[in-house]
Amino acid sequence: MKYELKSERVFDIIAIGRACIDLNATEYNRPMEETMTFTKYVGGSPVNIAIGSSKLGLKTGFIGKLADDQHGRFIANYIQNLGIDTTGVVIDRAGHKTGLAFTEIKSPEECSILMYRDNVADLYLEPSEVDEDYIRQTSTLLVSGTALSQSPSREAVLKAVSLARKHNVKVIFELDYRPYTWNSIEETAIYYALVAEQADIVIGTRDEFDILEHRKGENEQTIAYLFQHLPQLIVIKHGVEGSYAYTKIGQRFQSKAYITQVLKTFGAGDSYASAFLYALFAGKDIETALKYGSASASIVVSKHSSSEAMPTVNEIEQLITADEKEAQYR
Amino acid sequence: MKYELKSERVFDIIAIGRACIDLNATEYNRPMEETMTFTKYVGGSPVNIAIGSSKLGLKTGFIGKLADDQHGRFIANYIQNLGIDTTGVVIDRAGHKTGLAFTEIKSPEECSILMYRDNVADLYLEPSEVDEDYIRQTSTLLVSGTALSQSPSREAVLKAVSLARKHNVKVIFELDYRPYTWNSIEETAIYYALVAEQADIVIGTRDEFDILEHRKGENEQTIAYLFQHLPQLIVIKHGVEGSYAYTKIGQRFQSKAYITQVLKTFGAGDSYASAFLYALFAGKDIETALKYGSASASIVVSKHSSSEAMPTVNEIEQLITADEKEAQYR
Amino acid sequence: MKYELKSERVFDIIAIGRACIDLNATEYNRPMEETMTFTKYVGGSPVNIAIGSSKLGLKTGFIGKLADDQHGRFIANYIQNLGIDTTGVVIDRAGHKTGLAFTEIKSPEECSILMYRDNVADLYLEPSEVDEDYIRQTSTLLVSGTALSQSPSREAVLKAVSLARKHNVKVIFELDYRPYTWNSIEETAIYYALVAEQADIVIGTRDEFDILEHRKGENEQTIAYLFQHLPQLIVIKHGVEGSYAYTKIGQRFQSKAYITQVLKTFGAGDSYASAFLYALFAGKDIETALKYGSASASIVVSKHSSSEAMPTVNEIEQLITADEKEAQYR
Amino acid sequence: MKYELKSERVFDIIAIGRACIDLNATEYNRPMEETMTFTKYVGGSPVNIAIGSSKLGLKTGFIGKLADDQHGRFIANYIQNLGIDTTGVVIDRAGHKTGLAFTEIKSPEECSILMYRDNVADLYLEPSEVDEDYIRQTSTLLVSGTALSQSPSREAVLKAVSLARKHNVKVIFELDYRPYTWNSIEETAIYYALVAEQADIVIGTRDEFDILEHRKGENEQTIAYLFQHLPQLIVIKHGVEGSYAYTKIGQRFQSKAYITQVLKTFGAGDSYASAFLYALFAGKDIETALKYGSASASIVVSKHSSSEAMPTVNEIEQLITADEKEAQYR
Repeated sequence: MKYELKSERVFDIIAIGRACIDLNATEYNRPMEETMTFTKYVGGSPVNIAIGSSKLGLKTGFIGKLADDQHGRFIANYIQNLGIDTTGVVIDRAGHKTGLAFTEIKSPEECSILMYRDNVADLYLEPSEVDEDYIRQTSTLLVSGTALSQSPSREAVLKAVSLARKHNVKVIFELDYRPYTWNSIEETAIYYALVAEQADIVIGTRDEFDILEHRKGENEQTIAYLFQHLPQLIVIKHGVEGSYAYTKIGQRFQSKAYITQVLKTFGAGDSYASAFLYALFAGKDIETALKYGSASASIVVSKHSSSEAMPTVNEIEQLITADEKEAQYR
Repeated sequence: MKYELKSERVFDIIAIGRACIDLNATEYNRPMEETMTFTKYVGGSPVNIAIGSSKLGLKTGFIGKLADDQHGRFIANYIQNLGIDTTGVVIDRAGHKTGLAFTEIKSPEECSILMYRDNVADLYLEPSEVDEDYIRQTSTLLVSGTALSQSPSREAVLKAVSLARKHNVKVIFELDYRPYTWNSIEETAIYYALVAEQADIVIGTRDEFDILEHRKGENEQTIAYLFQHLPQLIVIKHGVEGSYAYTKIGQRFQSKAYITQVLKTFGAGDSYASAFLYALFAGKDIETALKYGSASASIVVSKHSSSEAMPTVNEIEQLITADEKEAQYR
Repeated sequence: MKYELKSERVFDIIAIGRACIDLNATEYNRPMEETMTFTKYVGGSPVNIAIGSSKLGLKTGFIGKLADDQHGRFIANYIQNLGIDTTGVVIDRAGHKTGLAFTEIKSPEECSILMYRDNVADLYLEPSEVDEDYIRQTSTLLVSGTALSQSPSREAVLKAVSLARKHNVKVIFELDYRPYTWNSIEETAIYYALVAEQADIVIGTRDEFDILEHRKGENEQTIAYLFQHLPQLIVIKHGVEGSYAYTKIGQRFQSKAYITQVLKTFGAGDSYASAFLYALFAGKDIETALKYGSASASIVVSKHSSSEAMPTVNEIEQLITADEKEAQYR
Repeated sequence: MKYELKSERVFDIIAIGRACIDLNATEYNRPMEETMTFTKYVGGSPVNIAIGSSKLGLKTGFIGKLADDQHGRFIANYIQNLGIDTTGVVIDRAGHKTGLAFTEIKSPEECSILMYRDNVADLYLEPSEVDEDYIRQTSTLLVSGTALSQSPSREAVLKAVSLARKHNVKVIFELDYRPYTWNSIEETAIYYALVAEQADIVIGTRDEFDILEHRKGENEQTIAYLFQHLPQLIVIKHGVEGSYAYTKIGQRFQSKAYITQVLKTFGAGDSYASAFLYALFAGKDIETALKYGSASASIVVSKHSSSEAMPTVNEIEQLITADEKEAQYR
């Protein structure tokens, strides 16, 4: 069973939302209080998915607002060098800063993030800065949930979704739930439902779907609810137990999680999404696309960054093949 | 052609949104600088529509947040005395004030309003204060556009609309556009479109539909756009030129405006909506309902207040009959 | 004992701070919920003192920020018509509103005020809008405590006090404590102390001095503290028990409160201050000035407004004389 | 000429104000966009002065508010390990973050700082968190200008200064002007003047005194103005041209700047202040104290950090001696 994403447009994916700086502890396996140096990477779910997709060969664009400072320029340079189109990138002129995430890696099981998200530039993207002509040039629009957490970024995303619908651009909603930027769980549920009901594909963890539905739920309830609306394909990730894809016509697919030497848990979702989407664009069936997502996630969690570490097609396919060979002999 | 609103529920209409205080110049035909006394009335579009509907005999409820002060208590007493259900009324505990509108009536053509809308209680209605069990008890939910202008009232209304849809409650969207509470026209257009696309009936002036569509448009464009979504019935008012109703199945109805001795222009829209809806509930056809709306508006603009002046069925029908008789002899 | 205020300057008093609108219940002896009409007056402690002083014949100016609306223009017209100089009045261009005080007069003992003080124009006076050349033209600068409650009005007043000191303008500090505009009692105490220590005359109720000192205190402690700094004359009012004046050189004067038919308690302090200062300017001794203050307060509390009701010299002197004659026969 | 600071109290110096994190480019001589790793240090003028003073042997305390996170705990641990008393340190419970300064060292002449100062914990120190009993235990209170830039930290410092005066604690005002946290230059001038007029010692660069006086001024004007008020000793730094000290009784002292291999300009002022104050505590005359300040500044600008690099007495004295010897042979 395939799900067609490809269309004759300039871009395969345009991602909209935040692009920030990750400051990853250079020395790990210790509390951040004892970390003395930090290494700088581009971070933020939608830009990470754009980076991952671009590395896998998709034609990718990014819409977001960057601070007018050294961190903002670093991000712009970095993604341009990867071949991501930055026509939709706006420079903030109001003095807002780049969001920061200091990551602390005490152990594979104990990771935490210290966020700087007050008045960050990405949440100041204005609806007037989302361009209709740009949106109509893409096959898919990837929306990340965090961009809905505050105005005016919230309205910019709602406008982008509305324009996508108008121009038959498929909407992919990556739930990407980060509690620190939201006022309340109830508010999150309202906007998540608004966008999910209008999306073609919704991707998230089981916990994130619980936030969207504002209840502790089961996959069967989730799909019963969402398939009443526009979604065609729903991907629900259950961590080490693997992930599931559901289609509106009633199919259900499953993939295990690939075992790896985990360094940290950050970045797993972004690498999953980019590889899953890449596989659909490449004409793979949904079941195979789930494998690509899982394999890509497993590669990123074994490495130090979330963006730099995004794998190539080759790396993903080698992991899948190696795993299948090994399974033969088990 | 009829449009059925009635269902076997506890309430005909529950209105959601603001309830404020109007301070109307006791002395009129002069600038407010020279007005020395003001008379106090309940005001605010959705509560006015509830008042109008209740006076016309509909079973009416109101959802809104009132200040914990003398003005808030005045409003609560006033609407309770009219028989409006206040189960859904919440008292603000955070010190927010009642919105005020000082009205200045220089001449029938020159009216203005001096608004106090900073941190007003009505805009602090929380989504958690909108009760699913209450919403399911009504045939229709009347939403007023101003309640969408700020959080958390915006989210409370979005939740109410979502619950209404879930329980087959018809959604009536009165555009009620007031520029002073919105950040930008673009933001207004985004939320107006979100709610209008999910409403069953949309009522507004031609200018208000232009705000919703974010362009200078024609009625034909408006209905072409909105009938792609959920609306069944659209009422567009053109001031003294009369008003139009359009149905999804392609009909178009029209009513003239009734000529009167205009004292001020405030309150016309609210009295229009309540009489129009009353007529539909009473089983009148759409064309007759337009007449009820126009006649009711014409009565209110000839009087001093917007709420106290709401007419009875008798007054409305007398005006229509008198007008028809007169027309016979013209 | 006299205290010389007069000097050869253009103005006797320039008052700085708020000018607002009082909306007094036209019908009194009832709760505000039952009041249906309100009468409009100019209100706010410093402008009231300017009005009172001007009516008593002092050359008076006012520095403050007025809303760019009908209420703001009403205030400007009103004080100009009384002959108060408005060179120092600035019109707000940022959409801030005029402060409102709805007064409720249930009985002489039970009065309350419903305030609208969110984002009011008067608290947006900027330090750059206080003009050094204007300040140097006055014998005294009257500062009202409420103007210190928020930035930038706070800094505008601190600048005015600093300029007054520089140009040998006497600073009169009327404590005028209104809890609703302050963040905390501790913050109030800090700024009250900063200004009181630099003032020549400090006037307030015993309760207000307790706020300034951040303790429940006695007059003896108050003067022991303040006379270590710049003040020369301190007036402490004890309500119906009368008022006291203390001088740096150790004198103590006292006046009783004049008995009257009290309608409401608002406006007593402002009328006290203007008559007390008038008497000093007129060359009366401090003891007589206390009588002028008390008599003036007693006249205002028997009338409906705080500003309109400000008495003339004649009315004040008649009350004092009548009272003295009566005392002779007691 | 000596200026006596020492008294029989528990602490020599208590510094009040911010303590933050500096993230210094590990790779320097390049734009920050190309810097990939950052090294973490404690930063912020008053805590740096406390660190410098403590390393020189003074009994030192610190009053400030720290974020309840890894960065806040790092700072607390760091200064405790240096023997600084942290009785006056308060942990923020409202989720505010630690201020950050990313430093960019393109060349010795071209350094810049990218600040994160939105809603930082240090500016949320409350007046109620400043303890009178703690203040009375110190000989001197060191106030840094930036702590005056926002409420409630501003009021906390005003209270500390007032308590210091009450208990004969000498107030040292280090101007430490950082434009990014202030609303306007006029506001800065108002609060700088308020504190400077009440300080015993005022230390700053010529540019900072221009901010305080709100004019482009000369040292002679500065001292004419400030010596009318409480200050006894004023230190004005002119960069590479050296620094000047003025006393109320009319003396003037001067020191050259020591030549060094400059790496960056950050931290010069803090190291100057701590060494200058150390010398006064040690009973050196003012002229010698200026040398200590200059020598200490010259050592810090040649090193990578501002806090870690604070010199010992030995290092300072060696530099002075070496310089004097060299001068002999020139």
